[in-house]
Amino acid sequence: MTGGGPLGIVAGGGALPARLAAAARAAGRSVFVVALAGEGAEVDADATVGLGQVGRLFSLLRTAGCHEVAIAGYVSRPDLGDLKLDWTGIRLLPRLAPKLRGGDDALMRAIVGAFEDEGFRVVGPEEVAAPLLATECCLTVSSPDGADWADIARADAIVGALAPFDVGQGAVVARGIALAIEAVEGTDAMLARLADLPAHVRGTGKAARAGVLLKAAKHAQERRLDLPAIGPETVRRAAAAGLAGIALRAGDALILDRHDVIAAADAEGLFVVGYTAHDLSRHCGAGA
Amino acid sequence: MTGGGPLGIVAGGGALPARLAAAARAAGRSVFVVALAGEGAEVDADATVGLGQVGRLFSLLRTAGCHEVAIAGYVSRPDLGDLKLDWTGIRLLPRLAPKLRGGDDALMRAIVGAFEDEGFRVVGPEEVAAPLLATECCLTVSSPDGADWADIARADAIVGALAPFDVGQGAVVARGIALAIEAVEGTDAMLARLADLPAHVRGTGKAARAGVLLKAAKHAQERRLDLPAIGPETVRRAAAAGLAGIALRAGDALILDRHDVIAAADAEGLFVVGYTAHDLSRHCGAGA
Repeated sequence: MTGGGPLGIVAGGGALPARLAAAARAAGRSVFVVALAGEGAEVDADATVGLGQVGRLFSLLRTAGCHEVAIAGYVSRPDLGDLKLDWTGIRLLPRLAPKLRGGDDALMRAIVGAFEDEGFRVVGPEEVAAPLLATECCLTVSSPDGADWADIARADAIVGALAPFDVGQGAVVARGIALAIEAVEGTDAMLARLADLPAHVRGTGKAARAGVLLKAAKHAQERRLDLPAIGPETVRRAAAAGLAGIALRAGDALILDRHDVIAAADAEGLFVVGYTAHDLSRHCGAGA
Repeated sequence: MTGGGPLGIVAGGGALPARLAAAARAAGRSVFVVALAGEGAEVDADATVGLGQVGRLFSLLRTAGCHEVAIAGYVSRPDLGDLKLDWTGIRLLPRLAPKLRGGDDALMRAIVGAFEDEGFRVVGPEEVAAPLLATECCLTVSSPDGADWADIARADAIVGALAPFDVGQGAVVARGIALAIEAVEGTDAMLARLADLPAHVRGTGKAARAGVLLKAAKHAQERRLDLPAIGPETVRRAAAAGLAGIALRAGDALILDRHDVIAAADAEGLFVVGYTAHDLSRHCGAGA
């Protein structure tokens, strides 16, 4: 069911909004893209609004005939003093502002609620573009060996343990040692800082890769807005950090530009694998 | 009971070994200090051994009449190829090497076991120098307010959730948001990277401090070797990162150079507080 109109896409930064628009069009659906100003949206937009122009955003989507809306891409946590709110924004502020002090998830749920109160249905990227979602398979020539599976199981346990606290969609584990845990800084910053660790605790490039970057949605996560995503650039950064591969919990992460991801990983000898709890128990035993 | 001889101190890097030696001497006990070469020990040593010269280390301690040994200070995770093992080291290697692939705690337990098999009693820093241990009190003029206590409770929950995975002695939480989680990189590196976050998600210096650095021992932690420690430099780095204060789980962390820590914190307006589970439930309610 398409809601009888174009898919509205509210576009933050990064590659996801353009990929969603392309996937929707490929499925025969028209799209209406509203970019959020100042967030570096990489997509051809039909309109642009400031982060505080909430009323204008709703009105643009309604005028375009949108009943379903996908919200996609990075949005920097706003500084309330710079928001330049319109009247609808001012009306919603008491509801959203307290959530800015919590983790991402509370804020995401409040944003989804605000759209739904206006009569829009908020759809997740996997509803619009199922092929983006990581599935249980190894996409690459290289695949995880026993030590890699142990690292995947440990990283999965770490990310899982942090889920109740609305933090951590990513971790890097190499040879059993947690090299990095993602908080608010993002995956790119986490991978970049691996270069500061002593070479022998991490992999050292193509000759001796070690360690896994794992990405998985937080339990509580408002999945429609904030599924973790990787792209070719993630692969290149993981390769530069000396890692052996990337693991994504199946159904819990997005792969953007899949062909480029596979090509980049194969060129560097990395694996990219989607895994389930069943894989972990099969490769690592029940206690892993 | 002093074991009838001087306290042996096996000294890695950082300020802790010298503080332990001073505290033992102040308590009327002689010490015999063996520095580990290449680890940057900041202490007057009676002898220096390489990390692989395990037999020489045991023999030095025995010749000096030591029955009790404290192992203190940072030791970089060794590259096995560079160890230059002596015969005792070669004999112990099959026991220790597999632990290098696990977290710190398995390795620490194996090291303690190796000393005990040689007839030494391994003592923790708090046995030698009880005043170093954080207690339940606020040391500073500034003390945590309600928002700070909420941040402390959240950071404590995050560090606690990671404890079973032998990772994470530290975290930074500001206004409910986990800004950083410590993995293998260490507290200094974790604090340094806060500068890369947008100013409005963190505190912005003396005028608007926000956020708490929390340090607490891992559950499973071999406490005799690896209690987390702060010193005046930690306070200065926390201040530079814009944080409001530092929280240490009482009995689970060391404070080195306590007077300098207090002076540095008061000069910058930071709090330094030792807390218990009771404090968290009193300030934040049972569910915090």
